[in-house]
Amino acid sequence: MALIVQKYGGTSVGNTDRIKNVARRVAKSRAEGDQIVVVVSAMSGVTDGLIKLSKEITPLPSEREMDMLLATGEQQTIALTAIALHAAGIPAVSLTGAQAGIVTDGVHTKAKIQNITPAEVHRLLDAGNVVIVAGFQGQTEEGQITTLGRGGSDLTAIALAAALKADLCQIYTDVDGVYTADPRLVPTAHKLPEISYDEMLELAGAGAKVMQLRSVEFAKKFDVIFEVRSSLNENPGTIVKEETKSMEDVVVRGVSIDKNQAKITVEGVPDQPGRAARIFKALSEAAINVDMIVQNVSHAGGVRVTDISFTVDKPDLLKASKVIDGIRPDLAFTNVSTDESIGKLSIVGVGMRSHSGVAARMFETLASEGINIGMISTSEIKISVIIDSKDGDRAVKAVHQAFIG
Amino acid sequence: MALIVQKYGGTSVGNTDRIKNVARRVAKSRAEGDQIVVVVSAMSGVTDGLIKLSKEITPLPSEREMDMLLATGEQQTIALTAIALHAAGIPAVSLTGAQAGIVTDGVHTKAKIQNITPAEVHRLLDAGNVVIVAGFQGQTEEGQITTLGRGGSDLTAIALAAALKADLCQIYTDVDGVYTADPRLVPTAHKLPEISYDEMLELAGAGAKVMQLRSVEFAKKFDVIFEVRSSLNENPGTIVKEETKSMEDVVVRGVSIDKNQAKITVEGVPDQPGRAARIFKALSEAAINVDMIVQNVSHAGGVRVTDISFTVDKPDLLKASKVIDGIRPDLAFTNVSTDESIGKLSIVGVGMRSHSGVAARMFETLASEGINIGMISTSEIKISVIIDSKDGDRAVKAVHQAFIG
Repeated sequence: MALIVQKYGGTSVGNTDRIKNVARRVAKSRAEGDQIVVVVSAMSGVTDGLIKLSKEITPLPSEREMDMLLATGEQQTIALTAIALHAAGIPAVSLTGAQAGIVTDGVHTKAKIQNITPAEVHRLLDAGNVVIVAGFQGQTEEGQITTLGRGGSDLTAIALAAALKADLCQIYTDVDGVYTADPRLVPTAHKLPEISYDEMLELAGAGAKVMQLRSVEFAKKFDVIFEVRSSLNENPGTIVKEETKSMEDVVVRGVSIDKNQAKITVEGVPDQPGRAARIFKALSEAAINVDMIVQNVSHAGGVRVTDISFTVDKPDLLKASKVIDGIRPDLAFTNVSTDESIGKLSIVGVGMRSHSGVAARMFETLASEGINIGMISTSEIKISVIIDSKDGDRAVKAVHQAFIG
Repeated sequence: MALIVQKYGGTSVGNTDRIKNVARRVAKSRAEGDQIVVVVSAMSGVTDGLIKLSKEITPLPSEREMDMLLATGEQQTIALTAIALHAAGIPAVSLTGAQAGIVTDGVHTKAKIQNITPAEVHRLLDAGNVVIVAGFQGQTEEGQITTLGRGGSDLTAIALAAALKADLCQIYTDVDGVYTADPRLVPTAHKLPEISYDEMLELAGAGAKVMQLRSVEFAKKFDVIFEVRSSLNENPGTIVKEETKSMEDVVVRGVSIDKNQAKITVEGVPDQPGRAARIFKALSEAAINVDMIVQNVSHAGGVRVTDISFTVDKPDLLKASKVIDGIRPDLAFTNVSTDESIGKLSIVGVGMRSHSGVAARMFETLASEGINIGMISTSEIKISVIIDSKDGDRAVKAVHQAFIG
């Protein structure tokens, strides 16, 4: 008898027919003799509807009260899912995050899970129930309701799988698994049977939409093997797990394009120690995430100056520009320019560590397509380049063709 | 500095504009230096929408899961109300029923409040906050979420007022207070400045829609004085409190008509001890509430038989008929007849105790209008008669004219 944690996202529980579909899937798994814990998100649209209500009242609602408000979305889904399981003849009990023993810190709207006491979940499982847990939410030690932020339901599932020492954790979503590239862009893209945590992390960071970074990081930290698969068919998905020796045979696991970034260039920064630090400290204090950073070599001349370019999420561009303008008197740079029409093309693969010439081959491929490279950034298992966004789709196809086929 | 509990019902918080209106009212009360606890219902339509979702899945959802589902309605309103108070510059904290210390028994969908530990509410009040509590809900000692059933938010307000030893409890609704009769039926009906618990109870039992019986019973038991008033204007409402000597000067406090009842007559019941008991035991076991009961004198003849008539809520009529049919072999009666086109006309007033001839005057008034009386039932402070429903409105007007003006 295995213990399986299954997580169903907002579109998988988007209406009562889909919730009944989830109940059928759970019933089938249970018929195989396994203990099942189901983690569900809010029905798609519910969270947005609640946010809209709050914004009708004030543009900046209190984060504590937003948690109180948004936690109801998942609570509704757990109840409806339990009701659907009962209708399918399966004993089932729903639990809020708090009832499931999920204790978080007190940082409302983006709380971190501190620990999980799964005694009640175990008790209900042992009594023969399917246990349905509200994703995305927890409770502080003082009894305050908290939510975990974006991707929080995945995190709930993976954290519960760790705490319960589950045999399997399945993340059901509206895609079949993790692909070598977006199949809508690249017809030859194929689903990966498995991928390492690090590759998954780099792909998530590179704009692949399957999962949030933090859930994968959590899984890696607690060694939770999980499968990403579709709730709409029976196809096997992609297993995400610790790297194995055989994974290194593949140089490039996936290719992605992220068009949600914008580039800022700070020109003519005096080339003195601490100038760059001041830029990124100011951005960090404004809670703006910076992704790629490139500092060019200094220009020769009287006072040596340099250009510093970096990318931020597109919605943060205006805020970031203002922050940079604010430190102009202090930093004495000459100009700031921004560019929203960029794309970040990335290739990811643990095989890069043992294969040389990967970057050269990527750059040659782009050159042969006449695609110009603006910025380059590399990690041990990823190479990212900034290109013009209009070249993005063509670049993904060409690079996929060159490395994967 | 007074401590005031204010309860706002579903229509008073029916959209974000109305929630902002509630915030303005609360802000105004607080500006007078009082401590305010606000109890809110779900926004109108929310609970029905959730029930509809559950019925899409199965006609008979689990009561525990319905509580899990429906409790989210009030939780949404408390968060939005807190957000609206913040927007009005008022410190405010929302609490679920559980967080407010409301402990109930485990009878899901109609739980009874067992006790309230208001320490957290007091702490937040003393720290300068308006405290907003979710009506209609509580938690068992084991941490199960429960709801209190119909009229539950009124009950929450009155129970909290008792536990907090509040100076005042205001029930805000969409009517101005308690009237001598429905003003839509009787143009001369007027709002009562005050009414005794017993009169309010009899009026509620007689079909006046203002409040559920149980909330008034609770208020009476714990001596909580409360005011029923409108959230849409500044008019003073009706104070509900223990009877005073001066209340006896008024013979009839109010006139009501209840068209939601149906009559069942069991004919030819052998007139032997225990026969009537068997009928009402069977109905009680089927959880059917019986209101008026009349047993006629026995017919003379060989075996003495009698007719027993009683009224039930209209939605229970079919179920009640089946129950009676089921005991026919045992009871050996001759026939069952039902009548849905009835109305129960009631007059209520503590003054009846000290004034004689009230019933006679009521019956004469109806007779002079040519209205036939089917059944009669009296309590110390109420007289109810069953009449034809088509005569209902005319009867209310005539009786109001005779006793009140």
